[in-house]
Amino acid sequence: MEYSTSSLINSFQPKEKHTTLFNHQISARIRLATQLDVPNLHKLVTQMAEYHGLSQIFTTTETSLYNNLFKSPNPPFHSPTALILEISPNPFPQTNHTTTNFVPIIKNNYNFDNLEILDHELETYRSKFNGHGSDNSNNCNVYVAGHVLVYPSYNGFFEKPGLFLDQMFVRKCYRGMKFGKLLFSAVAMQAEKMGMGMVDWLVADWNEETINFYEKMGAHYIPEYRLCKLYGDQLQAFGKKSD
Amino acid sequence: MEYSTSSLINSFQPKEKHTTLFNHQISARIRLATQLDVPNLHKLVTQMAEYHGLSQIFTTTETSLYNNLFKSPNPPFHSPTALILEISPNPFPQTNHTTTNFVPIIKNNYNFDNLEILDHELETYRSKFNGHGSDNSNNCNVYVAGHVLVYPSYNGFFEKPGLFLDQMFVRKCYRGMKFGKLLFSAVAMQAEKMGMGMVDWLVADWNEETINFYEKMGAHYIPEYRLCKLYGDQLQAFGKKSD
Repeated sequence: MEYSTSSLINSFQPKEKHTTLFNHQISARIRLATQLDVPNLHKLVTQMAEYHGLSQIFTTTETSLYNNLFKSPNPPFHSPTALILEISPNPFPQTNHTTTNFVPIIKNNYNFDNLEILDHELETYRSKFNGHGSDNSNNCNVYVAGHVLVYPSYNGFFEKPGLFLDQMFVRKCYRGMKFGKLLFSAVAMQAEKMGMGMVDWLVADWNEETINFYEKMGAHYIPEYRLCKLYGDQLQAFGKKSD
Repeated sequence: MEYSTSSLINSFQPKEKHTTLFNHQISARIRLATQLDVPNLHKLVTQMAEYHGLSQIFTTTETSLYNNLFKSPNPPFHSPTALILEISPNPFPQTNHTTTNFVPIIKNNYNFDNLEILDHELETYRSKFNGHGSDNSNNCNVYVAGHVLVYPSYNGFFEKPGLFLDQMFVRKCYRGMKFGKLLFSAVAMQAEKMGMGMVDWLVADWNEETINFYEKMGAHYIPEYRLCKLYGDQLQAFGKKSD
């Protein structure tokens, strides 16, 4: 399976307005990503890189996402794993059976007094997932609204391993609706369910709103650590070292 | 295979002086840790936690080290992996064959004008490794001087996965001899050799000497990211959540 690189999509300036699909109610589902999600996932990580001003270091392609997320022989959460946030005007069918180690999280019929969502990319983000053979009718109006990327981590000071939360992203028009909290909870619940001891992640120091959000969730904010990163030419130079 | 928890060892105040083994020359080897290294590795991570003032969160036991480092079906560097730094007054035998994906790094006969190493824990840290059947005689004077812990990482903005360097530690009496650089190079070379795109790690902002060391190696220091960590009761609370 091969993917071509999508071009960058600047999505933060709506070019046209669409009538909202949502009428006071919206339903959400978090499920494991599949190979069919790769094009939507690539658009999401591209938008996230733009939001963080990191387009100049961004090298992810659809092929690399496929290779990094779907070629491991390990089960989900034992290698890099993506969860997809889907939204729909219709309730999602409840699923109690699953063939994987992640049970989809479904929150049907969130009520909002004013639900004016203008999603100018609605069609682009139509969900490609079709995991419920018995109830295909509900998939017509299912759209991708965000994602998380996690991978198993380890800290030599702790007895139990953990999950590193590499990315969490909700598309702009779906923010303020507690979907970030839902995604974060999904990761924390999964770590706890798998007997892990921690969830770690990084947050930009200018992102006060997000830091407050995390502290409310019970996270420890550890201000004294700084990230270092060796990549590109500097990393390649080590491959040529003889001493 | 079960291990008991070792008690904390406060090693930073030498209680007695030992005559140094080293007479102007010291040899070093970096190799994959084996199960036999678990007791020494536990002493190293305990000392490192003390050095960083993190004894109060430290929960690592010999059993947990064994479970986290040696029970994965994945090859080294595809799950949490430890490298051991050994030193000896005698040169290490060169090894060109290896059954793993890591070729030991050997630096024989470092010359120092003044090599006054007072290692009051020399006997405690005698190496348990015996990987060179044809040359056992050299193992008599081999001692463990440090370690690194790494695990595979992934960043959704980069095409290639990487290695996260969780811990790098050189015992106090062996510092200033460029063994840190040797350990760091071993990790960077391995990442490059495995076709990875990056090595990431965290450094404490008060540790200027170490930050300078990393920047000289070509690392990017990224000051705006902060670590968040969810663990203990706060993480367990997510396991009980129903909404």
